[in-house]
Amino acid sequence: MFDKVLIANRGEIALRILRACRELGIATVAVHSTADENAMHVRLADESVCIGPPSASQSYLNIPAILAACEITGADAVHPGYGFLSENARFADILAEHNIAFIGPSAEHIRLMGDKIEAKRTAAGLGIPVVPGSEGAIDDNDEARRIAAEIGYPVLVKAAAGGGGRGMKVAYSQDEIEGVLQHCRNEAGAAFGDDAVYIEKYLAKPRHIEIQVLGDGQGNAVHLGERDCSLQRRHQKLWEEALSPALNDEARREIGTRVANAVAELGYSGAGTVEFLYENGQFYFIEMNTRLQVEHPVTEMITGLDLVQEQIRIAAGSQLGYGQEDITFDGHAIECRINAENAFTFAPSPGRIEELHPPGGLGVRVDSGLYSGYSVPPYYDSLIAKLIVFGKTRNECLMRLRRALGEYVIEGVQTTIPLFNDLLAEPDIIDGHYDIHWLENYLDRRRESEAGTAQKA
Amino acid sequence: MFDKVLIANRGEIALRILRACRELGIATVAVHSTADENAMHVRLADESVCIGPPSASQSYLNIPAILAACEITGADAVHPGYGFLSENARFADILAEHNIAFIGPSAEHIRLMGDKIEAKRTAAGLGIPVVPGSEGAIDDNDEARRIAAEIGYPVLVKAAAGGGGRGMKVAYSQDEIEGVLQHCRNEAGAAFGDDAVYIEKYLAKPRHIEIQVLGDGQGNAVHLGERDCSLQRRHQKLWEEALSPALNDEARREIGTRVANAVAELGYSGAGTVEFLYENGQFYFIEMNTRLQVEHPVTEMITGLDLVQEQIRIAAGSQLGYGQEDITFDGHAIECRINAENAFTFAPSPGRIEELHPPGGLGVRVDSGLYSGYSVPPYYDSLIAKLIVFGKTRNECLMRLRRALGEYVIEGVQTTIPLFNDLLAEPDIIDGHYDIHWLENYLDRRRESEAGTAQKA
Repeated sequence: MFDKVLIANRGEIALRILRACRELGIATVAVHSTADENAMHVRLADESVCIGPPSASQSYLNIPAILAACEITGADAVHPGYGFLSENARFADILAEHNIAFIGPSAEHIRLMGDKIEAKRTAAGLGIPVVPGSEGAIDDNDEARRIAAEIGYPVLVKAAAGGGGRGMKVAYSQDEIEGVLQHCRNEAGAAFGDDAVYIEKYLAKPRHIEIQVLGDGQGNAVHLGERDCSLQRRHQKLWEEALSPALNDEARREIGTRVANAVAELGYSGAGTVEFLYENGQFYFIEMNTRLQVEHPVTEMITGLDLVQEQIRIAAGSQLGYGQEDITFDGHAIECRINAENAFTFAPSPGRIEELHPPGGLGVRVDSGLYSGYSVPPYYDSLIAKLIVFGKTRNECLMRLRRALGEYVIEGVQTTIPLFNDLLAEPDIIDGHYDIHWLENYLDRRRESEAGTAQKA
Repeated sequence: MFDKVLIANRGEIALRILRACRELGIATVAVHSTADENAMHVRLADESVCIGPPSASQSYLNIPAILAACEITGADAVHPGYGFLSENARFADILAEHNIAFIGPSAEHIRLMGDKIEAKRTAAGLGIPVVPGSEGAIDDNDEARRIAAEIGYPVLVKAAAGGGGRGMKVAYSQDEIEGVLQHCRNEAGAAFGDDAVYIEKYLAKPRHIEIQVLGDGQGNAVHLGERDCSLQRRHQKLWEEALSPALNDEARREIGTRVANAVAELGYSGAGTVEFLYENGQFYFIEMNTRLQVEHPVTEMITGLDLVQEQIRIAAGSQLGYGQEDITFDGHAIECRINAENAFTFAPSPGRIEELHPPGGLGVRVDSGLYSGYSVPPYYDSLIAKLIVFGKTRNECLMRLRRALGEYVIEGVQTTIPLFNDLLAEPDIIDGHYDIHWLENYLDRRRESEAGTAQKA
């Protein structure tokens, strides 16, 4: 086991990792920018090192400074958390060169999954369902017609060089395909200087469902069930739950087994998440995240595993020591991301925490580095706390979440708490009927209704 | 189900009950003395009523004032918490006369278990093991000799009218019995004006182990395993854990089944706790508490049941809806009572909470009405928070407890936190080797060692 772990991150996740280390009897080193010198993870760590000014590129992304902090303090391992350097293969390589363990998968697997085309090819080769589509750029209209017919309409035409929705359009029938192709080629050529396009099955109302896995790189891997993270705004998850209200046990076992087998075959080491879109009972691979995720606590609540401790044990060379048959799912868990931002405009709201009272009691977990008097800096992600609630059933969990949100007092900054209070009154949320567009549509409806009210007034 | 529950208590347990009601969709009424008008449970309740001045006899024990509060607010049930009116059969009777439900067992069962001699007789009749001894006062030396021989030495001679340790002495052999009898008779006569004495088996180093039960008064009852509450100072529990490090599955099942059967046979309705001394593999009934206990959360953590919600459902007439085979014990839980008092002298330390930072994260539960700026009043019990920690194993639980205590910041009053930090370094605590005298002996050793150090200095 490691003697001393350097935590190359900040905020709630730095504190989360510190807690796991402490419970394993491992000493901790916090690193921080000048903006974070009073942060909770810095106060609680055994040692701390300032690694640069507020700008992330000069601090939390500053590999030489972090490496120097390891050497000064004698840390024998680094936990990168999520974001920042957590999926930076070069960082993993550099640590290895210095005989410092990277608490995460191999640089090779980070690289493989970082290349989205290669990742999809690998996933398909390992028996993981992917979005059907052309195997690359479309040469002509006849090929497009043939592939679209194979996949079935509607199909999505996408610019190969694309991004941000440009050069992307849905064709609903064979009558439309030529026009859509031309439209996308024109837009792609103008926007990216490359008019290559490809075709994928179009998913109209999918859910975002992801499978948590653990592998030990020694041939053993398990899946820990799924998380449903469909409630998103601008691709930012806000509410995550485990298990998904949309899956039954058979579907869960089927996809979970495929993913666990693939991870074992890869020789993958550490925690990872395989993300899917899910529609009409079918899963479609999006990507694999080769790190801990923000929403990992909901999986911890229903499996009883401490994912960060598992990451550390695996990185230290331990075998899993348990098999799929030992993993059970009990109860239901929901996480709400408490961000320092306006709950409806999502405008950031940094500032000083004047009053703080987190909820407590049975089934309530708060992961947060906040304290009364702490100043939320304006330089980083707006996530300031995660409220995670557990119940024997999804309904008990919802009732408890409503209760816990009602107790939560954070004064001095605006937060997303009012949004969650409102969501808990929505029948679709109560029934678990939502897809990845639901939250955006809901926010649009609210804005329209408020604009209407304002007009009448 | 009830529409509105009045919570006839204060502090963390009032908040605990409020949370359970809210999660069941039941409105809440807080009652409070003038000293508690800014208490958390008052702030969070749907309604609140001031029922008197700080003195408990004029407020939390003031039955007419509480009854009036029920009538003013239209509450259809009262939860008494623990202490105060929770085992007051007359209060239960009066509520019944006013058609207000008492969330607890019948007045009859409260009365039965409130009479310690009757309770012991009933327990024995229901097959629960009791401390062997004379069936009442001893007539003469010959009878004493015969009974002591039957029980086996050492035996304890106790004044029938006794209390506070007076008129009580151990006889280790037949040679001593006459002298001890005479000693106790003399002391009892002088102290209580009644020289009647009786004999019981003497337990030298027992543990305090209690079985949590739930009955629905409709013939169904289950036990929820045991709690080990041996770590006490002056009969005040300070640290409780579930399950007990001293019991194996077979012993647990055996005593649990006996207790659950007895409770079913009694027709007992609600939550209750049957307390035992435990020595050399034998259980000896002490008493039955006909109410929720301070330490109930450790049972909740390992069974997944919400005991307060169960109490409310049962009082509203629900059947248990599950049997013993549905109750499982997962993991290990420890509760530390955080009192506002000096950790070693136990002198009370009321005052204003200047800084507060409760621990959080995986496996950590805090039940507390504290907030920053709150003033702990000097009039009531010193318990201000309960830190409850869960782990897959007892060892994981201990590591997590150490971590959580290290994060806990309460400034402005002295607390028992430093004592728990020290206890976690004691091999006996780590190994689970302690009896009901362990903590007193430990505190004595500390005092002696400090006195020695002071003398040398």
